[in-house]
Amino acid sequence: MELIQDFNKIFERISKDKPLVHHITNYVTVNDCANIILALGGSPVMADDPKEAEEMVSLASSLVLNVGTLNQRTIESFILVGKKANSLGIPVVLDPVGVGATKLREKTVRSILDEVKLSVLRGNMSEIKNIYGSGGIIRGVDSIDDSMKGGKEIALELSNRLKCVVAITGATDIISDGDKVYYIDNGHEILARVTGTGCMTTSLIGLCCGTKENPLQAAVMGTTIMGIAGEKAYETLENKEHIGTFRVKLMDAIGSFSIKDLEKRGKIHEV
Amino acid sequence: MELIQDFNKIFERISKDKPLVHHITNYVTVNDCANIILALGGSPVMADDPKEAEEMVSLASSLVLNVGTLNQRTIESFILVGKKANSLGIPVVLDPVGVGATKLREKTVRSILDEVKLSVLRGNMSEIKNIYGSGGIIRGVDSIDDSMKGGKEIALELSNRLKCVVAITGATDIISDGDKVYYIDNGHEILARVTGTGCMTTSLIGLCCGTKENPLQAAVMGTTIMGIAGEKAYETLENKEHIGTFRVKLMDAIGSFSIKDLEKRGKIHEV
Amino acid sequence: MELIQDFNKIFERISKDKPLVHHITNYVTVNDCANIILALGGSPVMADDPKEAEEMVSLASSLVLNVGTLNQRTIESFILVGKKANSLGIPVVLDPVGVGATKLREKTVRSILDEVKLSVLRGNMSEIKNIYGSGGIIRGVDSIDDSMKGGKEIALELSNRLKCVVAITGATDIISDGDKVYYIDNGHEILARVTGTGCMTTSLIGLCCGTKENPLQAAVMGTTIMGIAGEKAYETLENKEHIGTFRVKLMDAIGSFSIKDLEKRGKIHEV
Repeated sequence: MELIQDFNKIFERISKDKPLVHHITNYVTVNDCANIILALGGSPVMADDPKEAEEMVSLASSLVLNVGTLNQRTIESFILVGKKANSLGIPVVLDPVGVGATKLREKTVRSILDEVKLSVLRGNMSEIKNIYGSGGIIRGVDSIDDSMKGGKEIALELSNRLKCVVAITGATDIISDGDKVYYIDNGHEILARVTGTGCMTTSLIGLCCGTKENPLQAAVMGTTIMGIAGEKAYETLENKEHIGTFRVKLMDAIGSFSIKDLEKRGKIHEV
Repeated sequence: MELIQDFNKIFERISKDKPLVHHITNYVTVNDCANIILALGGSPVMADDPKEAEEMVSLASSLVLNVGTLNQRTIESFILVGKKANSLGIPVVLDPVGVGATKLREKTVRSILDEVKLSVLRGNMSEIKNIYGSGGIIRGVDSIDDSMKGGKEIALELSNRLKCVVAITGATDIISDGDKVYYIDNGHEILARVTGTGCMTTSLIGLCCGTKENPLQAAVMGTTIMGIAGEKAYETLENKEHIGTFRVKLMDAIGSFSIKDLEKRGKIHEV
Repeated sequence: MELIQDFNKIFERISKDKPLVHHITNYVTVNDCANIILALGGSPVMADDPKEAEEMVSLASSLVLNVGTLNQRTIESFILVGKKANSLGIPVVLDPVGVGATKLREKTVRSILDEVKLSVLRGNMSEIKNIYGSGGIIRGVDSIDDSMKGGKEIALELSNRLKCVVAITGATDIISDGDKVYYIDNGHEILARVTGTGCMTTSLIGLCCGTKENPLQAAVMGTTIMGIAGEKAYETLENKEHIGTFRVKLMDAIGSFSIKDLEKRGKIHEV
């Protein structure tokens, strides 16, 4: 895998710099996001009040915006902090959780896309299709559009339109920077039975972006780490229905993750 | 157990429809509530901003209102969304966490009861007595009224007054629709040593209600599942003080729950 | 260890009174804080709306203020509730998470210190130095000032200035009431790889203070319990990188904690 040198560089920078990843995120999965950042060697900070969020992001290596439980306070901060990050050259990653489910989510995501320059946009197929404009069907915050059909074209076109990396995660993850397109075949369907695995993937991408390496490689790496961690956790699960134990093992897999896991297990191919 | 056919029907509908359970809930136990819904096969969504909550509930199969960390934003949404759910025929389940501890909680719960038609009200004896009007003693959010004395009468009368199922959970759970009364003797006291087991029971009831089956059976089933899961988790616990491991095993038990567990272990009797 | 009688008294009171610990805290680690209070035998309550927080604290044995994700709502409540607790003789413990990272945090913490009489202030070296005025370097919410140099003098002086116990936690914890100074050498560096261990330590101190025993001993006891629990959890960890399992075992260690652990493992010395 030709990407392995790039991944190694990102790994080393995480280990050396311990990137601070500022999150404006939802209150459902925020603890998991903080723990996954720490488990892989970064440092998380969550601060969403408009009166301090711009100052906080100034200290950060990257910014994660997650609209999962958006409200008046966070909506104001998304824009303020996103712009501040842009002005300081700090990479911004957006997770448009449930966009399309309500007008407020759609409006909020549109205004972020209009006013903030993203490094990476990560969503499931329903969310990305909604942004793309082809009417992704949304029901709540879980994707009900499992078909990855047309994913390559959507990722390419949307990436060019938004001038950022687009990561569509699902059974096969599709990631593009508008030029190259990667497919990733890691992961396991049990990940969808635990809340926050999408959010955590976005946080890992945010951490990888915090190294200031190429955002395409950062997005591919963050996504692949989550997929491989899911596989490792599932493999050692004695009872395959034991969701609670799976969650623990998932965090174990991230905490003990190494470049060798990517080398041996990564199923990434350029298409 | 005559209820087993009804439970089976609910189980099958959950498996088939994957009901979307909209929560307006507290930020302490929200992650546990989301995970327990997923573990039993439903789909959770949490969205509490008044500007989107009505639209979100329109997509849902049921609605859970939990006042655990109520604030200006959620108080407004409770009423808006509850009414919207009523207008659409979506079942509403209320968890009046800590009602009676403060005037704000009492006022909020009263206004929900006045303006929203519930399918199920679930609380501990202190909370239910407060609503009933016999002055349940409240200290914080945990029940300090362990006596189930008079529970049958309270459940019956309150159920008739509110025209909804009333579930009083405790050492013995008492559930009534104003006509029938069930006692459930499942569960284990260790459940009280973990935060959120009450909230999670309410969420499970919400999920069962999301099948649109009879709310009495839904409430009995959700409550019994939690009790049995607690028993199963406790039985396999090597060190009975290991609260952390207990929490993991509790989620394992929900994730691997089957109708057989209800059949073999359910201690439900009509009184 | 001469403190052991005092610890025993605190333990017995927790077991007898089940102190109610009111938290106004952040939404990242709130679930862990609630669970750790329950695991050691207390009762947690989280309520942050200014319209009910004063009434809620009136029922409590102690109050924990944690500024981790402060916002307009909680900032107002910190002061209102802190004053109310003071007027009722309820001990107040402050965790100035990330103070110095932003002006808002600094201003908020200053106004709490000005208007509320604390029993215990607990922070890492960066945070305490910021309050002390010697310019602790802050980056996000994690301490990057690992040197404990000068810690004894800072703890002593700040304690005298604020007229409260000051607990600086780190590789060696330093705790003073302005007269005595204790060093605690328990704990393990893996605790820093899990989010919320600082917040949880503050909550344990809050629980110990809820017994109304001497706040110096309460602070030493709460801090030592966390350190020993970390050691016990780490020792039985098969793979030392398994952060997820470590978190579970940490809660197990708190749930099964006994006075014997303090007696056998406590590394506390007066200096």
